Amino acid sequence: MELSLAKIAEVVDGEVQGDVHKRIRGAAAFDDATDDEVTFAGSPKYLKRVDETGAGAVIVSHDFKTSVKNLIMVHNPQIAFAKVLKLFHPSLKPKAGISAKAHIGERLSCGEDVSIAPFTVLGNDVTLGHRVIIYPNVFIGDEVVIGDDVLIYPNVTILERCRIGSRVIIHAGTVIGSDGFGFAPDGERYHKIPHIGIVQIDDDVEIGALNAIDRGTIGKTWIQKGVKTDNLIQIAHNVTVGENSILVAQVGISGSVTIGKHTVLAGQAGIAGHITIGDNVTIGAQAGVAKSVPNGSVLSGTIAMHHPLWLKVQRVMPMLPELKKKLSDLDKRINKIEEEHRRG
Amino acid sequence: MELSLAKIAEVVDGEVQGDVHKRIRGAAAFDDATDDEVTFAGSPKYLKRVDETGAGAVIVSHDFKTSVKNLIMVHNPQIAFAKVLKLFHPSLKPKAGISAKAHIGERLSCGEDVSIAPFTVLGNDVTLGHRVIIYPNVFIGDEVVIGDDVLIYPNVTILERCRIGSRVIIHAGTVIGSDGFGFAPDGERYHKIPHIGIVQIDDDVEIGALNAIDRGTIGKTWIQKGVKTDNLIQIAHNVTVGENSILVAQVGISGSVTIGKHTVLAGQAGIAGHITIGDNVTIGAQAGVAKSVPNGSVLSGTIAMHHPLWLKVQRVMPMLPELKKKLSDLDKRINKIEEEHRRG
Amino acid sequence: MELSLAKIAEVVDGEVQGDVHKRIRGAAAFDDATDDEVTFAGSPKYLKRVDETGAGAVIVSHDFKTSVKNLIMVHNPQIAFAKVLKLFHPSLKPKAGISAKAHIGERLSCGEDVSIAPFTVLGNDVTLGHRVIIYPNVFIGDEVVIGDDVLIYPNVTILERCRIGSRVIIHAGTVIGSDGFGFAPDGERYHKIPHIGIVQIDDDVEIGALNAIDRGTIGKTWIQKGVKTDNLIQIAHNVTVGENSILVAQVGISGSVTIGKHTVLAGQAGIAGHITIGDNVTIGAQAGVAKSVPNGSVLSGTIAMHHPLWLKVQRVMPMLPELKKKLSDLDKRINKIEEEHRRG
Repeated sequence: MELSLAKIAEVVDGEVQGDVHKRIRGAAAFDDATDDEVTFAGSPKYLKRVDETGAGAVIVSHDFKTSVKNLIMVHNPQIAFAKVLKLFHPSLKPKAGISAKAHIGERLSCGEDVSIAPFTVLGNDVTLGHRVIIYPNVFIGDEVVIGDDVLIYPNVTILERCRIGSRVIIHAGTVIGSDGFGFAPDGERYHKIPHIGIVQIDDDVEIGALNAIDRGTIGKTWIQKGVKTDNLIQIAHNVTVGENSILVAQVGISGSVTIGKHTVLAGQAGIAGHITIGDNVTIGAQAGVAKSVPNGSVLSGTIAMHHPLWLKVQRVMPMLPELKKKLSDLDKRINKIEEEHRRG
Repeated sequence: MELSLAKIAEVVDGEVQGDVHKRIRGAAAFDDATDDEVTFAGSPKYLKRVDETGAGAVIVSHDFKTSVKNLIMVHNPQIAFAKVLKLFHPSLKPKAGISAKAHIGERLSCGEDVSIAPFTVLGNDVTLGHRVIIYPNVFIGDEVVIGDDVLIYPNVTILERCRIGSRVIIHAGTVIGSDGFGFAPDGERYHKIPHIGIVQIDDDVEIGALNAIDRGTIGKTWIQKGVKTDNLIQIAHNVTVGENSILVAQVGISGSVTIGKHTVLAGQAGIAGHITIGDNVTIGAQAGVAKSVPNGSVLSGTIAMHHPLWLKVQRVMPMLPELKKKLSDLDKRINKIEEEHRRG
Repeated sequence: MELSLAKIAEVVDGEVQGDVHKRIRGAAAFDDATDDEVTFAGSPKYLKRVDETGAGAVIVSHDFKTSVKNLIMVHNPQIAFAKVLKLFHPSLKPKAGISAKAHIGERLSCGEDVSIAPFTVLGNDVTLGHRVIIYPNVFIGDEVVIGDDVLIYPNVTILERCRIGSRVIIHAGTVIGSDGFGFAPDGERYHKIPHIGIVQIDDDVEIGALNAIDRGTIGKTWIQKGVKTDNLIQIAHNVTVGENSILVAQVGISGSVTIGKHTVLAGQAGIAGHITIGDNVTIGAQAGVAKSVPNGSVLSGTIAMHHPLWLKVQRVMPMLPELKKKLSDLDKRINKIEEEHRRG
């Protein structure tokens, strides 16, 4: 495919500065792009170097000053570049149709242009919206409901009665609707608590690879509209993740936690059970959060240092309470001395 | 289904206080329950509010004082409620039978009322007990032995020669019997050490979704009776997890670790290799354990704080050994001054 | 199988000290081995006890002094023992051939002696080298290229266009080529950035169970020759892992990180995005690395302590910056007092 800069500018709702007839055949990263490719400069680091890229054109923000390069000026260069990538690399959709090698349960309610691949199993009473694409080796349990334009990658498991909205993407190997980790101890052993709830995933959610999202004990585990989760994430029973929140890889959220809207949990962060994380919160990588966090907070808690130093720090850390007390003592003793000096 | 309170009390081995003829149609959470449902109050938080629930009856402990509500008095309300949940929501079992779409190896030894779903593969010389249920897309390797009443969810992999006890549940996507992470370095590259051991899982164990449990290098990785693991857990080669121990989500256990009985590893905790964690130990969330831990210990080690403060703490932490030294110095110097003062 | 010590010594390129005709039927761990088995003593701990093993022969280093036991003296006892294990327990290979129950796309280019198991799906235009073994329920996407002697365990997903070298092992449940976690925020919601790159895995790599390796946004995520990854590892888009590096279980590597050669990331370590970790670096277990790390560094950062003490440490840690200031103040005040005393 070959497009003029004018045409690309039209797609991304931008303005060309330079040669509108310039022919572009693809999109590439700033340092790799060649003369027939377009790239973007979103951060100051790249904006400073706009004239250094080999790209035939650069997508920049409207307020960018002039350059010897062909520019496409837009409101949000990163979003514009995402659109250009999609333009040159439209996602390949498998042909619509239900493979004869899939296993379909009874009473499937199925929208138009659905694609179901070989060795995928649908239970009974499943509902699929229009244009749903299910890759091979997926399991969809009884009474699962899935909206329109949903994409489910290979080896995903969605267990009975869970509900998936529209325009949801679920990456490979993810498990939705496993039993929550709930046991009633009798002092000696643990009795399984049946998990009769569900997982509900709302519209426009993207779930990464190898996530484990447990069903509610009673009621539901709820991933609200626009949430994006990275890979290898644990979401326990009865958790709510608010709209447009972001969970980075290997985050773990314990049971009955509520997370607000527009909140970010960075990689490997852990959230203790039964607490509330507010809206617009940022939890730093590897932070362990044991108490509720109000709206707008930014929490952190991890560190790495040179190993020999760490060995010493490790020895001192358990002495911190003692050190603190000693400091107060010293303070008092010096106060006393100073007092004596004053009195003379 | 509709049951009288008297009938429910009989099932949970409890005593009704109030209307024994009261009709109940389900079980629900304390704040959601309606007049034809039963709930439970296990903690002081809910016991204080027993009269506020909309439930038609509340399961409470024998020592609970009276209330305007219908009560079922029991020894352990949480266990009783688990039984009531099971009563109203019996788990749906797939029909017994081996799907013609499963692939069964040679010489299967198979108990009664076994259910094997489509696209599940059994290797050669597999042994299955009675009433085993295997969901779709499961792989069971050669010479695997599985006991009675075992439930294996979709997309599970159990590799050759592993042994699974009775009444074991294995949640979706879990891998049992992968090679341990063992390589012999020659200074330049790593030579794979063959892993000829197995994984042995004893009776009444429940393994969460997306666990990775490696086989022994030689000998076995051993999950003993009654152990429960949450999701996304790593158990390395030749680990032993003692009876009725609990591994919370995203825990990682390194090779050749021995964990005692009734021990709890909270979420994201990590255990270094070749150490022993005793019985009745609790390891806090995200704690990193590098040395053996005696019976009954409670260890912790994680923290989150406000980000600007954290940035400062992060700068001071590497100075801790120096701070400690400085404190001692100050102490000595003040001692000296005080000594002089005393001598006058 | 029964072999003489002389024969075993020949295989491991070693020298027998003792009875060259001694018959050996297997290999076992130091403390479990019996008279017809061979074991090895690699560390001082076992070398001290060589005469205590029940083994019929012990593999030791060339510089080991004599013993009452039959010995095989070699350059590297661990590598020699790995060879002996392989000798007595050759890996069982499934029969070559493509199962009629596999689903093979169009235009497969297939080497000799390939084995493809039931319910595995290959997309279109896939290339497989010689002696590739693919277990059941695997998904291989369109245009994937796989080298010779590759072993792919059950329930693995390899998405379109990824490239796998020769002698690569991929353990069960792993996902290769999922979309990177890249979204362009517009202040309200997140727009998906198409991921058009690939994952490239070079020769002699071993990938553990349940790894998630995302494809590059543009360009590639690159696992270089000889890398070994343990289980449950996250490798984000556009990461490079250098030759012969080691990633221990549950490590997480953020986007666009470059990791050098012969580097070790211990369990649960986390690496922030867009940084460079040098060659021959060791990152300790659970360490969080936020800045680039030069060649040869050893970093650490995790701790566990007794819980009551931890509760106190936790309270003091946020006071560290304040404590540090207070110490400086005390220091100044004592200096002043001492000055006065001197002037006396």
